[in-house]
Amino acid sequence: MDVTRSLARYVVNATYESLPAEVIHEAKRSLLNWMGVAIGGCRHEAVGIALATVAEFSGPPKASVLGRTERLDILHAALINGMSSHVFDFDDTHLATVIHPSGPVAPGLLAIAETRPVSGKDLLLAFVLGVEVECRIGRAVYPSHYDQGWHITATAGVFGAAAAAGKLLRLTEEQMVHALGIAATQAAGLREMFGTHCKPFHPGRAAQNGLLAAHLAARGFTSSTQPIEGRRGFASVMAAERNLAEITDGLGERFEIRYNTYKPFACGIVIHPAIDGCIQLRNEYGLTADQIARIDLRVNPLVLELTGKRAPRVGLEGKFSVFHSVSVAIIDGMAGEAQYSDARVADPAVVALRERVSAAPDAGVAKDECHVTVTLRDGRVLKRHVRHAVGSLERPMSDDELDAKFRGLVAPILPADQTEEVIRLCRSLERVPDSAALVKVAVPRAAKDRT
Amino acid sequence: MDVTRSLARYVVNATYESLPAEVIHEAKRSLLNWMGVAIGGCRHEAVGIALATVAEFSGPPKASVLGRTERLDILHAALINGMSSHVFDFDDTHLATVIHPSGPVAPGLLAIAETRPVSGKDLLLAFVLGVEVECRIGRAVYPSHYDQGWHITATAGVFGAAAAAGKLLRLTEEQMVHALGIAATQAAGLREMFGTHCKPFHPGRAAQNGLLAAHLAARGFTSSTQPIEGRRGFASVMAAERNLAEITDGLGERFEIRYNTYKPFACGIVIHPAIDGCIQLRNEYGLTADQIARIDLRVNPLVLELTGKRAPRVGLEGKFSVFHSVSVAIIDGMAGEAQYSDARVADPAVVALRERVSAAPDAGVAKDECHVTVTLRDGRVLKRHVRHAVGSLERPMSDDELDAKFRGLVAPILPADQTEEVIRLCRSLERVPDSAALVKVAVPRAAKDRT
Repeated sequence: MDVTRSLARYVVNATYESLPAEVIHEAKRSLLNWMGVAIGGCRHEAVGIALATVAEFSGPPKASVLGRTERLDILHAALINGMSSHVFDFDDTHLATVIHPSGPVAPGLLAIAETRPVSGKDLLLAFVLGVEVECRIGRAVYPSHYDQGWHITATAGVFGAAAAAGKLLRLTEEQMVHALGIAATQAAGLREMFGTHCKPFHPGRAAQNGLLAAHLAARGFTSSTQPIEGRRGFASVMAAERNLAEITDGLGERFEIRYNTYKPFACGIVIHPAIDGCIQLRNEYGLTADQIARIDLRVNPLVLELTGKRAPRVGLEGKFSVFHSVSVAIIDGMAGEAQYSDARVADPAVVALRERVSAAPDAGVAKDECHVTVTLRDGRVLKRHVRHAVGSLERPMSDDELDAKFRGLVAPILPADQTEEVIRLCRSLERVPDSAALVKVAVPRAAKDRT
Repeated sequence: MDVTRSLARYVVNATYESLPAEVIHEAKRSLLNWMGVAIGGCRHEAVGIALATVAEFSGPPKASVLGRTERLDILHAALINGMSSHVFDFDDTHLATVIHPSGPVAPGLLAIAETRPVSGKDLLLAFVLGVEVECRIGRAVYPSHYDQGWHITATAGVFGAAAAAGKLLRLTEEQMVHALGIAATQAAGLREMFGTHCKPFHPGRAAQNGLLAAHLAARGFTSSTQPIEGRRGFASVMAAERNLAEITDGLGERFEIRYNTYKPFACGIVIHPAIDGCIQLRNEYGLTADQIARIDLRVNPLVLELTGKRAPRVGLEGKFSVFHSVSVAIIDGMAGEAQYSDARVADPAVVALRERVSAAPDAGVAKDECHVTVTLRDGRVLKRHVRHAVGSLERPMSDDELDAKFRGLVAPILPADQTEEVIRLCRSLERVPDSAALVKVAVPRAAKDRT
């Protein structure tokens, strides 16, 4: 079965009109969420080092670094934007494969859009197809591929990047097969790197390498025509068990982007139900910290294993503390990047409240479930049972919640009018004639005025 | 056992003075051979497509493409030079791992040498260390890694590229650990791609990615500090069986470059004993084709399996024909790229002789062995038993033979005076104050005059 060719044929022939409305809607949500994490992450140390390094080698500065003033050649811009979108671990997740789908796919598309006119519809279509390709290939090799130690966002993502860019470059079916092959032979990224600068480097590199693959294929560069299914192809070499039917079954009918999810909170997903429950009670009862005598959580055992840090000292440690997370949830009503700053972790009010939080492990509680009990100083006891945390497939973030997340992420980077303009453009992207407009408003004004 | 750190420490501390004379001699042989294949391959279609593609994205043109007039940023120059050196499959081979060692390592070093003064001694030292690193890592995972389907020249080569470049960039031990880690997480390249443009792309990309890894590490970019030996590191993820002791045992005592070999003939290595025997008889007896009634070979069965093509039609098919190869060996006294042109394969004299060649498989004949019997029209019967073909570890090519191979490869590209100057500089590299000189004479004069 020539799965690579089937996939290539589908990508080459797919039209915007073939996409169901809910797929387009989800694509716009994914893009807005991705723009938020990319802009929000643009000043991270890992991004700064990579940018300073590649600036020395960059070619014609045709593409923007989101949120920053530097411009780079399109390959390096894809690298940096892909990196910044993953530095907070706050990007989207295709739960069935744990792929973060947008990071490898979106950067190349925006970069191409800065070099030639790309309509909003074309951008959405290419984006949907890129996500489709990477998630289907991911499904074919998950979980053995991931368990083996591969960072699947990078290894599957490079295919998505190549397919999406290849769609905008209008590759023929034959060229698309080779683009997927050139992507396959660049698939890389080890989970051993988690916790280091290399982790965000992975989706950035996948974006860059996939973009190069599409450009090489456009000029006639050849690869194997069975790069995924061949005896020594991607699936055989990089996964102990695989199911290639996942790549082609229901192509054009089932859309992987519909299974994409967005993190509402800037921390490990296991704490999300507790944060969710506390924010719900806070908002419903107008709770303030000084009203609260104690907070008792009944949680899945993983919560304490992974995020049981009682007294975090710096912002990053706060992300591994359910106690800190619940405390800021009550006080701030949110748990974004701002709630995990060094200052917030050391704030006396936050510290005082977190010392009144306790958490009990209960194997009967699911991973996206939590029981929250808030005891007030006036004796009232408020309870909330979160069956599925916000951000799960069962209870997705609303459009308004995604907008709010976006605003929170870009507040330190973009002025309010540009922030709202990014939201407006993403939300109406199918009516935008030239999607380069989306990039222009995602760069701080000082830089924009210079160009 | 922290093998990555041990390796990094050795590379950072090693000095030119610590290298035995025979190691330096072999390094110069490897470099000359590599320059020959890189210059000779520079007009290959795969190189042309890749060059046209990346030229669009190239940064400051600080580095040369060997044999050509284009200049690129150093990362892209490393890619292209690494590619061109492998397009003929005529580069060096570390037989114990089937790594082609020079391709990933040399390009980054030459590129750096064009941006800052690098003495010949420093270049030689960095080159030896790069080869050491990649071949030791290769030994640790060979053969299971290769059998699994990885193109080991690329996957191990990227470490060598990073180590060598990192040595020239004077990385600290800590930075060198991270450089190896950034290399590890870019290790890629599938054997499924053999026979396509992606095959030479692999060592080129390894050269480029390793060079980037060293530059990132120099600025403080971090990776895992156990990228090879960690639970989800390179060795565990990419090899079913591994022996990490190969990486550190006898470091600084045993040198892998001493096990490097060079192909005398531009075709599959299984035919080399037959070609060798025929050239020996030709030269000793002054044979010409018209004297010969028939040639009978007794060969390892693999010879007919892999290269049994009776009537090749184009040059590339000639490489898979023991009959053509033996025929040109008698007529031309060599089997270089020129002997595998379309014209040579169609030449009536060559065709006539190859029809008088027969080959019998014999499982008792080793892979680097051959029995040649030449029956002359005057009734004489000449026999030659080749126990180990020229180019094997047991019977290495002489310096003169390497010089002749180099001249044959670059003849279509460089004028004779530049050809001889490359040989002279390679042969005396430890006395060359600025090794950029080696690159300058490897570019056709028209281009050199422009710079």
